[in-house]
Amino acid sequence: MMVASYLGAGQLAVDTTPAVPPAPGEVQLRVAFVGICGTDLHILHGAMDERIALPQAIGHEVSATVAALGEGVTGWAVGDRVTVMPLDWDGTCPACLAGHRHLCHHLNFVGIDSPGGLQEYWNVGVSLLVALPPSLGLREAALAEPTAVAVHDVRRSGLATGDKAVVLGGGPIGVLIAAVARHLGALVMVSEVDAERRRLAASLGFAVVDPTDEALGARVEDWTRGAGADVVFEVSGAGAAVAQATSLLKVRGVLVVVAIHSQPQAVDLKRVFWRELTLLGTRVYEREDFARALDLLAHGVIPAAALISAVEPLRSVPEAFERLQGGGAMKILIAVGGDST
Amino acid sequence: MMVASYLGAGQLAVDTTPAVPPAPGEVQLRVAFVGICGTDLHILHGAMDERIALPQAIGHEVSATVAALGEGVTGWAVGDRVTVMPLDWDGTCPACLAGHRHLCHHLNFVGIDSPGGLQEYWNVGVSLLVALPPSLGLREAALAEPTAVAVHDVRRSGLATGDKAVVLGGGPIGVLIAAVARHLGALVMVSEVDAERRRLAASLGFAVVDPTDEALGARVEDWTRGAGADVVFEVSGAGAAVAQATSLLKVRGVLVVVAIHSQPQAVDLKRVFWRELTLLGTRVYEREDFARALDLLAHGVIPAAALISAVEPLRSVPEAFERLQGGGAMKILIAVGGDST
Repeated sequence: MMVASYLGAGQLAVDTTPAVPPAPGEVQLRVAFVGICGTDLHILHGAMDERIALPQAIGHEVSATVAALGEGVTGWAVGDRVTVMPLDWDGTCPACLAGHRHLCHHLNFVGIDSPGGLQEYWNVGVSLLVALPPSLGLREAALAEPTAVAVHDVRRSGLATGDKAVVLGGGPIGVLIAAVARHLGALVMVSEVDAERRRLAASLGFAVVDPTDEALGARVEDWTRGAGADVVFEVSGAGAAVAQATSLLKVRGVLVVVAIHSQPQAVDLKRVFWRELTLLGTRVYEREDFARALDLLAHGVIPAAALISAVEPLRSVPEAFERLQGGGAMKILIAVGGDST
Repeated sequence: MMVASYLGAGQLAVDTTPAVPPAPGEVQLRVAFVGICGTDLHILHGAMDERIALPQAIGHEVSATVAALGEGVTGWAVGDRVTVMPLDWDGTCPACLAGHRHLCHHLNFVGIDSPGGLQEYWNVGVSLLVALPPSLGLREAALAEPTAVAVHDVRRSGLATGDKAVVLGGGPIGVLIAAVARHLGALVMVSEVDAERRRLAASLGFAVVDPTDEALGARVEDWTRGAGADVVFEVSGAGAAVAQATSLLKVRGVLVVVAIHSQPQAVDLKRVFWRELTLLGTRVYEREDFARALDLLAHGVIPAAALISAVEPLRSVPEAFERLQGGGAMKILIAVGGDST
């Protein structure tokens, strides 16, 4: 079978290797589509090498069909259409015992800490499978994982109908958060520096703003009649956005830190104090978020077609990563076993 | 009457001035005791000059008796024993309309933005009065305001019985937070660099740690059996404490930012993300917090005697500020009309 492997900083290769039968408790998946995400780019840049055993297939946004069942697996049949929730927890650490398994102290994030889905046949533990709604296509289902991130972020934020939310960063996660927030009844403004991404967000009906061109603070002040935004989602990963985010919020407003900031960032704690703001960390998703993400995708709430910039064959993984790095594209899917046309 | 006035950076003077009768809607108080707080020291350093009209009586931690009623005042009688909740809101701004009047966009903090209690007779709006429980002495009642801060901070934190809380900074507010948290059933550890303050906190029964001498992280890790603290209160105002605070918290733990950080501080947002932490700003108090603070003081929950380092006469205000600045003392009360012995 074909497999796309990360070989070390800057290196990806597509090769062939024999498929391995599933171990007891595992299911062998025939992978359909895999989305490439920002974390995959970080891996390619060598930023996560301490977590990866080389060479390793990466990819954690997957749709697939069940190809074979390992010993002892029940409740699933060959041909079942699934996605994978790529979290494998130990169940015994303080976080797991407290019920926060997605924050397990020893979490195995499948596709980073163990092999991912950029291979034709992929064996995963049966507990990671999530069945697809019958009406959901395999392409759209590859968006389940990032959509679950957005569902989790919006749920944690406490956003309510009629609230005004600002999304800082209009990449795939930013637009997914905007779509989930709007579906909840919030009014959403997307701030994004890239003109192409701004155009896309505007075409989906979101208010957009270029923070390099326009005073975002004054815009939000006007929009909220001097109160400030109820929720700001920081999805850009930029230090300047963090510094600005607190100034956009109303009294008791919530700043959701979605982006991963590898360096400590300067936060205006005086403003946090002055307006009694809440700053909230959010990480991955819980099982419930995955189920809701699939429902939202199946019901057409998520603008899947607009988000999928391209679908490329497995042999073109290196070029697909290159294109994504170059900017402009939103989500690129790899058609592993699915149709790339 | 005598009045202690702030005259500009570094200058305090005690002088005499005629008492003025209360305006309609005001009550004239005969001030008993006034506590000096860290904010008063900030004022003396000139750090809040843009909010102050010189010369101005300062002081906002007050106990008093009603001396005279202005026109139209009902519900109060001469001789009533009171404290003052020093917040005056406009009632019409977005924060007030949302029910968060203590965060009014145009809040008048009495004692900073308008004259305070370091004068023998003080006129205040009747809405600011809070009646004292009959069993509470006027000395202890002067601790109502800082105790209300602690009640507000603990209430906002969501701390629950059996939780483990770390208080970074063992000054008056830190010890008050520790006392309120313990009364709620939490286990409390106080981290403090000053040996004298550490000794005081230990004498009140709190676990104490010197963060310059001992690895606070390892101590908390042991104490919580690897889980991390449920809540950390950052009361020190030190950048290093903010940087460390996030590392002490359990998954979904809460960092309450109590201290006022005049400069943006580096926050480990990766840790905030990784453990889904909450960072919470807290400011002053609501009416409910004041009422609870008085009840806790009246019931002996607050170690008032241990916190009051000295009681000085009004004529000695400059020396009292000097002593407080020098360190070592916790709360110094000024006996304005009360007994200083």
